[in-house]
Amino acid sequence: MTVLRIALGVEYDGTDFLGWQRLSHGSTVQAALEDALGFVAAHRVEVTCAGRTDAGVHARCQVVHFDSPSERTQRAWVLGTNSQLPAAVAVRWAAPVADTFHARFSARARRYRYAILNRPVRPALDARFVTWERAPLDAAAMHDAAQALVGEHDFSAFRTSACQARSPMRRVQAVTVTREGDRLQIDIRANAFLHHMVRNIVGSLLPVGRGERPAAWIGELLAGRDRNRAGPTAPATGLCFLGPLYEEAPGLPAEVVLATPDIHR
Amino acid sequence: MTVLRIALGVEYDGTDFLGWQRLSHGSTVQAALEDALGFVAAHRVEVTCAGRTDAGVHARCQVVHFDSPSERTQRAWVLGTNSQLPAAVAVRWAAPVADTFHARFSARARRYRYAILNRPVRPALDARFVTWERAPLDAAAMHDAAQALVGEHDFSAFRTSACQARSPMRRVQAVTVTREGDRLQIDIRANAFLHHMVRNIVGSLLPVGRGERPAAWIGELLAGRDRNRAGPTAPATGLCFLGPLYEEAPGLPAEVVLATPDIHR
Repeated sequence: MTVLRIALGVEYDGTDFLGWQRLSHGSTVQAALEDALGFVAAHRVEVTCAGRTDAGVHARCQVVHFDSPSERTQRAWVLGTNSQLPAAVAVRWAAPVADTFHARFSARARRYRYAILNRPVRPALDARFVTWERAPLDAAAMHDAAQALVGEHDFSAFRTSACQARSPMRRVQAVTVTREGDRLQIDIRANAFLHHMVRNIVGSLLPVGRGERPAAWIGELLAGRDRNRAGPTAPATGLCFLGPLYEEAPGLPAEVVLATPDIHR
Repeated sequence: MTVLRIALGVEYDGTDFLGWQRLSHGSTVQAALEDALGFVAAHRVEVTCAGRTDAGVHARCQVVHFDSPSERTQRAWVLGTNSQLPAAVAVRWAAPVADTFHARFSARARRYRYAILNRPVRPALDARFVTWERAPLDAAAMHDAAQALVGEHDFSAFRTSACQARSPMRRVQAVTVTREGDRLQIDIRANAFLHHMVRNIVGSLLPVGRGERPAAWIGELLAGRDRNRAGPTAPATGLCFLGPLYEEAPGLPAEVVLATPDIHR
């Protein structure tokens, strides 16, 4: 019996889930996906994801892998699974991959985007996908402040006490803060992230944007390695996991593959 | 007793409403807004809107007006009302206007945007705000075809039988079809719209985009003035009322005011 390893790209609106990871009670993305895949595979399926997301956090392209002896076309893995998934989750692609591919351990980088609606009144249209900040934010000051995070550092200052990672060292490859009208977008890419790292970084960039803290504060927090001195954890609503990046491999679509100039980062 | 006329800019996610207009049963945006305003005004409030939207249709800046003898600050009309509204509706601004201002009759133009997700698999993240089309669409062909609509025409071909307008004549000022990645955006601006006009136009542009009809078909449909020959009504999900445009008036924010070169259109 040949067992094949399959990778999937998965998109979800995290609003109505208790997060990625399967729980004994309550609705999670992992449980919804494993149940739907199990229906298509006709056996119990366990998936491993590139990056677990918390309750309310969305994903544009979460990547998972699983093993199955069931022979199915890529089309069946995608369309069959989607027919069994709730509307808030969709498999975007399926690819047979080598059994050395691991959604989590093979990932060389991960990209997150945090969206802020910066205006006096609360959102209605995009309420599920933005965090609302009524005080005017200086995006340029936030961008400058965030540059202190680039490079390999001990990110203990931005790590939740519940974080289970063995090392607090992570390498932030790029971070940008941009504004378009009343929307701010914080894009951050790293080799990997600690638990709550993006939301804790955003929670400390907000006081900089409001002018309550100088831009240099972010670098000081980082150097201090003390979670208690940093800002509060920003809400989950504005956070979206854009997806991981892997080295080129047969089957993987371009959107999850490192661009050539990226490989040596 | 001085009665003041107030204009409001209102944003809503139409997904969970039976449309704009108050019904004897069921949840509507008008009813939610009038109830919330009534709480702030301490009297029953009736609002008149720039453009009624159907069930599931969204609005970025619906404009309404109402009259009230209650003295309230603009801040109270906005924040007080928002505190009483469901999360899917928000008042963005309030402005005292002349009693000659009428949200519907003073509007010189209205802008709608229709969003299509064009990819093989259904949406999850943006499911509330896009219409899904799996067949590849030729946006350039759709754009070219749509240009036949520009100008003053009898739009009977794109008018629902339930439409109550006295005249089928409308002046389309601009229509564009653009693509960014797997997203198509159809922007259409007219002096006013017939009932279902945008969705019926989109429903006829889709077969052009799929290559099932030539670009010239749209002009032929328009000239034929026969609703039965045009495409089906496109789903409400992808439609958003961006808002009306008025001639400049004290109090009205720039986003609902005609730009200077627009005035003579």
